[in-house]
Amino acid sequence: MRDIAVFSGSAHPELAAEVCAHLGVPLRPTLVSRFANDCLEVQLQANCRERDVFLVQPLVKPVQEHLVELLLMCDAARGASARRITVVMPHYSYARSDKKDAPRISMGGRLVADLMVSAGASRVLAMTLHSPQVHGFFSVPVDHLHALRELAAHFRQYDLSRTTVVSPDLGNAKEAAAFARLIGAQVAAGAKQRFADDRVSINSVIGEVTGRDVIVLDDEIAKGSTVLELLDRLRELKPRSIRVACTHGLFASGALKRLTAQPDVLEIVCTNTVPIAEEELAEHGGKLRVLSIAPALAEAVRRIHNGESVSALFDGPVSE
Amino acid sequence: MRDIAVFSGSAHPELAAEVCAHLGVPLRPTLVSRFANDCLEVQLQANCRERDVFLVQPLVKPVQEHLVELLLMCDAARGASARRITVVMPHYSYARSDKKDAPRISMGGRLVADLMVSAGASRVLAMTLHSPQVHGFFSVPVDHLHALRELAAHFRQYDLSRTTVVSPDLGNAKEAAAFARLIGAQVAAGAKQRFADDRVSINSVIGEVTGRDVIVLDDEIAKGSTVLELLDRLRELKPRSIRVACTHGLFASGALKRLTAQPDVLEIVCTNTVPIAEEELAEHGGKLRVLSIAPALAEAVRRIHNGESVSALFDGPVSE
Amino acid sequence: MRDIAVFSGSAHPELAAEVCAHLGVPLRPTLVSRFANDCLEVQLQANCRERDVFLVQPLVKPVQEHLVELLLMCDAARGASARRITVVMPHYSYARSDKKDAPRISMGGRLVADLMVSAGASRVLAMTLHSPQVHGFFSVPVDHLHALRELAAHFRQYDLSRTTVVSPDLGNAKEAAAFARLIGAQVAAGAKQRFADDRVSINSVIGEVTGRDVIVLDDEIAKGSTVLELLDRLRELKPRSIRVACTHGLFASGALKRLTAQPDVLEIVCTNTVPIAEEELAEHGGKLRVLSIAPALAEAVRRIHNGESVSALFDGPVSE
Amino acid sequence: MRDIAVFSGSAHPELAAEVCAHLGVPLRPTLVSRFANDCLEVQLQANCRERDVFLVQPLVKPVQEHLVELLLMCDAARGASARRITVVMPHYSYARSDKKDAPRISMGGRLVADLMVSAGASRVLAMTLHSPQVHGFFSVPVDHLHALRELAAHFRQYDLSRTTVVSPDLGNAKEAAAFARLIGAQVAAGAKQRFADDRVSINSVIGEVTGRDVIVLDDEIAKGSTVLELLDRLRELKPRSIRVACTHGLFASGALKRLTAQPDVLEIVCTNTVPIAEEELAEHGGKLRVLSIAPALAEAVRRIHNGESVSALFDGPVSE
Amino acid sequence: MRDIAVFSGSAHPELAAEVCAHLGVPLRPTLVSRFANDCLEVQLQANCRERDVFLVQPLVKPVQEHLVELLLMCDAARGASARRITVVMPHYSYARSDKKDAPRISMGGRLVADLMVSAGASRVLAMTLHSPQVHGFFSVPVDHLHALRELAAHFRQYDLSRTTVVSPDLGNAKEAAAFARLIGAQVAAGAKQRFADDRVSINSVIGEVTGRDVIVLDDEIAKGSTVLELLDRLRELKPRSIRVACTHGLFASGALKRLTAQPDVLEIVCTNTVPIAEEELAEHGGKLRVLSIAPALAEAVRRIHNGESVSALFDGPVSE
Amino acid sequence: MRDIAVFSGSAHPELAAEVCAHLGVPLRPTLVSRFANDCLEVQLQANCRERDVFLVQPLVKPVQEHLVELLLMCDAARGASARRITVVMPHYSYARSDKKDAPRISMGGRLVADLMVSAGASRVLAMTLHSPQVHGFFSVPVDHLHALRELAAHFRQYDLSRTTVVSPDLGNAKEAAAFARLIGAQVAAGAKQRFADDRVSINSVIGEVTGRDVIVLDDEIAKGSTVLELLDRLRELKPRSIRVACTHGLFASGALKRLTAQPDVLEIVCTNTVPIAEEELAEHGGKLRVLSIAPALAEAVRRIHNGESVSALFDGPVSE
Repeated sequence: MRDIAVFSGSAHPELAAEVCAHLGVPLRPTLVSRFANDCLEVQLQANCRERDVFLVQPLVKPVQEHLVELLLMCDAARGASARRITVVMPHYSYARSDKKDAPRISMGGRLVADLMVSAGASRVLAMTLHSPQVHGFFSVPVDHLHALRELAAHFRQYDLSRTTVVSPDLGNAKEAAAFARLIGAQVAAGAKQRFADDRVSINSVIGEVTGRDVIVLDDEIAKGSTVLELLDRLRELKPRSIRVACTHGLFASGALKRLTAQPDVLEIVCTNTVPIAEEELAEHGGKLRVLSIAPALAEAVRRIHNGESVSALFDGPVSE
Repeated sequence: MRDIAVFSGSAHPELAAEVCAHLGVPLRPTLVSRFANDCLEVQLQANCRERDVFLVQPLVKPVQEHLVELLLMCDAARGASARRITVVMPHYSYARSDKKDAPRISMGGRLVADLMVSAGASRVLAMTLHSPQVHGFFSVPVDHLHALRELAAHFRQYDLSRTTVVSPDLGNAKEAAAFARLIGAQVAAGAKQRFADDRVSINSVIGEVTGRDVIVLDDEIAKGSTVLELLDRLRELKPRSIRVACTHGLFASGALKRLTAQPDVLEIVCTNTVPIAEEELAEHGGKLRVLSIAPALAEAVRRIHNGESVSALFDGPVSE
Repeated sequence: MRDIAVFSGSAHPELAAEVCAHLGVPLRPTLVSRFANDCLEVQLQANCRERDVFLVQPLVKPVQEHLVELLLMCDAARGASARRITVVMPHYSYARSDKKDAPRISMGGRLVADLMVSAGASRVLAMTLHSPQVHGFFSVPVDHLHALRELAAHFRQYDLSRTTVVSPDLGNAKEAAAFARLIGAQVAAGAKQRFADDRVSINSVIGEVTGRDVIVLDDEIAKGSTVLELLDRLRELKPRSIRVACTHGLFASGALKRLTAQPDVLEIVCTNTVPIAEEELAEHGGKLRVLSIAPALAEAVRRIHNGESVSALFDGPVSE
Repeated sequence: MRDIAVFSGSAHPELAAEVCAHLGVPLRPTLVSRFANDCLEVQLQANCRERDVFLVQPLVKPVQEHLVELLLMCDAARGASARRITVVMPHYSYARSDKKDAPRISMGGRLVADLMVSAGASRVLAMTLHSPQVHGFFSVPVDHLHALRELAAHFRQYDLSRTTVVSPDLGNAKEAAAFARLIGAQVAAGAKQRFADDRVSINSVIGEVTGRDVIVLDDEIAKGSTVLELLDRLRELKPRSIRVACTHGLFASGALKRLTAQPDVLEIVCTNTVPIAEEELAEHGGKLRVLSIAPALAEAVRRIHNGESVSALFDGPVSE
Repeated sequence: MRDIAVFSGSAHPELAAEVCAHLGVPLRPTLVSRFANDCLEVQLQANCRERDVFLVQPLVKPVQEHLVELLLMCDAARGASARRITVVMPHYSYARSDKKDAPRISMGGRLVADLMVSAGASRVLAMTLHSPQVHGFFSVPVDHLHALRELAAHFRQYDLSRTTVVSPDLGNAKEAAAFARLIGAQVAAGAKQRFADDRVSINSVIGEVTGRDVIVLDDEIAKGSTVLELLDRLRELKPRSIRVACTHGLFASGALKRLTAQPDVLEIVCTNTVPIAEEELAEHGGKLRVLSIAPALAEAVRRIHNGESVSALFDGPVSE
Repeated sequence: MRDIAVFSGSAHPELAAEVCAHLGVPLRPTLVSRFANDCLEVQLQANCRERDVFLVQPLVKPVQEHLVELLLMCDAARGASARRITVVMPHYSYARSDKKDAPRISMGGRLVADLMVSAGASRVLAMTLHSPQVHGFFSVPVDHLHALRELAAHFRQYDLSRTTVVSPDLGNAKEAAAFARLIGAQVAAGAKQRFADDRVSINSVIGEVTGRDVIVLDDEIAKGSTVLELLDRLRELKPRSIRVACTHGLFASGALKRLTAQPDVLEIVCTNTVPIAEEELAEHGGKLRVLSIAPALAEAVRRIHNGESVSALFDGPVSE
């Protein structure tokens, strides 16, 4: 691993450290200064010249701070003559802004992809993008991992013979279907309805749920409202058991507390693509199981650095 | 409509002529020459200098010929000092190549978008893109129309009180749901299964179908295999009636003949975003109803030219 | 003023409204939404198609939020087919990151200029950039105003016959000298010293100060430490009176309170390029005088829109 | 030859295989899929990551299919993180569209060069471009080989003491002159005349032909009309013998049959930059001699890969 | 002619003034300053904002000075918010560097085209480019005029019934042929030979010359060696009379003196695309006739400004 | 130092040779040809393919010739497939055009930076740029050296206990202050005044000068007028001794003669970033001491080539 230099922004240094530990390379220090006028300045505190530079930064809260910090890191690495700059972005939150469903709105998913390239990024390593098309928003090569393997390994400890994987909405049903096939389960999906006043609610679940062991699977849980609403619909159908899983556990606005408080939810599973506050974990983490994707990221970084095939290891989500 | 110049490639001159008739402007002639070495050369046969140029060309069979012809048209317009070049592309077939579901594959949806910009396109007017994210593949402004309004107007002649709109797969279910809401119907979707040998088949339909008037809705019908397979599953559920609808009626490999041959399919509805061969229509067009989107395209062109809001008229598909 | 559309981000809507009032055009509404995952989405709520769009947003605290919001506004305007997008940025805080005085640091002044262009900005209207060279960081045309005219008009109410304009450091001395010439005064400057432990302090003032009416002039006052330190040095030289002036009154970390608390500071003058909190004004605004640069911005916008010479009205700072 | 990966499009796999055999590396498989809507998708079926990738594809009939296929191959290689992508294009048919001799026509030679770069090509290896200026259409490095060496080696088997090399038109006369010098012969050229109705015909030959051994040399023979017309003029001048040679033997529209049918044409010589159909060869190949440029291409690829001088081996056509 | 602003660099202000006189617009002043360190600075001394700016500058001796001056003019116009910047370049001397006939040489024709675009040029108006392919070196629209019309008008005063137009080399023979057709004459061409020591000489003339009225036609006469050498060959063939004509009369290194000194040369004709020194004209201008292309340039500028077809007036050289 | 290739333009081959001697690599020959039409052509006469190419060229008189020559060298290296092209530019004279202090002027500092990148430069090695912000004009990495170390080493031979470093103007005072700190001296600066008729003169010196050993320090001495004027002001303040130092000794318009003629100037010190004519040295070089920065450049080139930290060796000017 000669000539590699891994830096972390301030979004998730624990994950970066874990990735580095798996790689057997040091995590290089990054100095982020904030001036009195609130502007940031980044100094990468290790030689980047002709190095293969990896910048680890999921776009988590505060997103704008972490985004600008990342762009400054790219700029600093480019100005410091890095040979190649790979942005390791385990959670690309702006990927949800992937379409224009109203006039004159911004399309953050494409814009932020362009900003990263404009700031100097040579390539991106991403995980479980909100939709597979987001891959096409980047004009540089993207390696797109997913966490289905890690999630499947976890759930295989249970008897999966009567399991149904439920996607909260039809739009995300493809990934749920892929996961269902991976663990030999059936698939179902919630169908949302949008009212005139722009409220959205799930008014039915299509697929077989009654008497089955349900795993609710979403790519990301933020406020958790969609999952909670789905749980209401599921209960009417009397499943045998309920578990909740996602790749990106954002758990905003007390989502973890609310989910934990559901007595019939046996378990909440997510990965460490985004950091979870210590207090949150201490107080409401009883049912939460956090799986680490650091080994997967580390292996991908190693292969990218060595020019080995990444797809050989991590297949994209098998399309439906 | 001063300073406008509309040209058609050889893909669908009838549609271009119809759009021009609605606009009240002449369709300017395009001369496409093929050299002995099979290369194409395009001459736009009307002054483009400082004109607002519109180039009408759906990417239909032979797609590669029509694509290169379109790129040459863009190049000719740019070299001829057009003020603005809008590609009017009622069918963007490459939009289906919108993700990387296998290693080292091309992503034609993004590539072709880049090629058009590289050839000089200033903006694009598209219709019913395979996924809304394809919008983000373009680095120039895109106006994205859909044909749900035209389809709804057609179906409102029937009693829709017991209607279920069925999407052949979960991936396209959002548009089906939007259409269902537009006509006050329910929604259902086929769930595909992919076998080890890479065959895909629909093994179930999730949603209420039995005894209902079914409208199968897809964005595009090419070979029609998916729809035919869905029909098999639907029949097991005993719907009251079956109609088939889509925006882009490609009807490749005898699809129209095969669909027409289904005795329980009452009607096949599509729009004229792609041309249908005269013989095909004469022989197998009995159940086919082709709706014209020329008025919609013409109105969009007029608004683009005049700097009026397009979204005010044509909303994007209401997202689920 | 046909075909003009002015929008404000959330940084300083009061200034945008004042500019619009002077222009006699409505301030168009901007809807900024924050998703549960902390990402922003912008909707410009008036037709932008073929319009001459002006986006008003100084980069003030929280800078990163306002920067990303501005980039999304540019993206939305571009996607909505704006004919031209002018970023009106009365305070470009990142301009202070205009050089590499340490290895492997980011150069935010250039990066952010590139990001704005990448997001769709066609031109920029800026005010009192930290250094005139920052103009060259932009690959699009920049109109660079300054507030010396407004400041001079204010100070001309006083007897200026024994006045010395003092720049806190040599780097900003050119603008102080220009201002001194404008009001017929002398110029002086503080000379800083940087210690091994990276503390900086002003250890002398070069120029005539004793017995004179001093106007301390800086481009921006953030924490105010530099000014406070300069005041210490100045007092040793026994000036007759002291006033403090700047274009950008950021007043971070209690700066206004601390400056107001200096008994021998008769007045603090700034402009409204950045907003000042109501409470701050109410509590510590006794000596503060805020001059409005809205008329100047409005006149510049009017001339840009009409294609009239801006330089004819607003000369760049006369270089020393 | 570590880290090299050679792929062939479907235009001329035999040539690619021959080049690979000379290089001693395997020809990696390319999977080209055609969807029901006639769109192509390319999968490069060997690891490209950090590899030095060579894509072999002459732009031969069907040109548009092969061009789009090549662009998709570039895109796939770029997305698969190829270190460098060299397009090996032994025949660049669009090079003939190298000027604007009519208003508002496309200039395919430049456009296609831009498209290749836009699709990801890092460099191009070309052979006998229609005019040397086409080199300048590319914004990436081009290695421009020619086949004069191979052609000369072939003709040196004959007595060349009374030979005149004849160019069918003045525009291509420079290459004919270079070839004449290479084999110690004289040069002559046909002078075309264009009539009002846009027919073109050769009305005279300038240079010494009577009683000499003539080699008609063109860069490309497509329909062969020009050569046939030249033969008519030549016969009037009573040469001693006639041979016909070119680099690119396209032989469209029965050209080979017609040329072979000329009793006084002793031999037709071309290279294998473009493939010739088996049946064509079997039926009309009696007088045809196809020289292989695979060794030359292989040596160029080897030198490009190793960073050795290509010009040292293959001089550009000695300019007149 | 509202909103037009024409500026001249220091290369040929007389021509710019003549063009402006034909247009009926003032020639706006340009201030070119040279600093003590030999750097240039340009100030365009009239408002450019939203104007249609034309910059007149042939690339004549001293070429590098005039080129950099032109690039600075483009930069100044861009920075001053010009709506469009058209470089009017009656003589593009770098067009002769249009191919790579030696390893590792610069290709100035393409490079300088890129530099102009990089400096802000939106389009180019050129005249008699050395080869028509140079058109393709530009990524912006080019209007390519020629002076054959002016030359033909001049020569039509003579009896042209026994005229042969002679191109000094085969490479330029196409334009000679076009001119011959325009005046109803025959065509001939010199054939050069390059010796081992890199000397080049014309060793024969192909075409009918004996007893005819010869017009030697080249695009440019610089040192005149080629023409002088051609005259030697022509004399051996005993033409009835000799005249010499070109578009670009550079007349370097005493060329005009030497040509004038040829007793059998009746006339030397050129245009004013490049300026000729007063003394030169006074001393050696006896046989020289300078035709003005200012009316043609002015008409082209007028049509470009008004968005009228330029090709309708000025056809490109009819290709052979 | 494998795979390195150093070329020199014609601006300062002695410096390039000295750098190569320190590196222990040969200086590769460059052939610059001037055509009869005054255009330049460059041939790099050693293999560049996949080499790390360094092009040494300060922008000295004649600046425009040397600039275009450099751009052609970049173009040739790029076309010859150089792996990386570093422009070694010890004197970037256009850096003085770094701001817009008048309407509609060119900003040469940014433009020339863009031209170099457009011509193919991958990175730049510069020395003592006129202002540190000029670094930000480049979109490619810049290594910015300074000569303060060399100057300090020279002056340390003297007793520096009563030394004041004097900057001729406030704008350059920061570098003077940095140098003063480096040698443990005080700092002072001249304050210029600009009159209505645009004459500029120094009307005062701020800082302690009387009875001290003065070192006048500027980045560049061209005509020397500013320094001479400063000397007048200094003499009024009766310093103990006067020395003059700068990085770039241009000495235009007899500056060296005039400075040498000042009886109280003990010494004039500069570096060899720009060449000084032999005759100039012989006639007026009595007080001149030229320090070589070739070792510093060579070490920087070595580190750039080897991917070692350059900043570790050469700190940027310690900011004030």
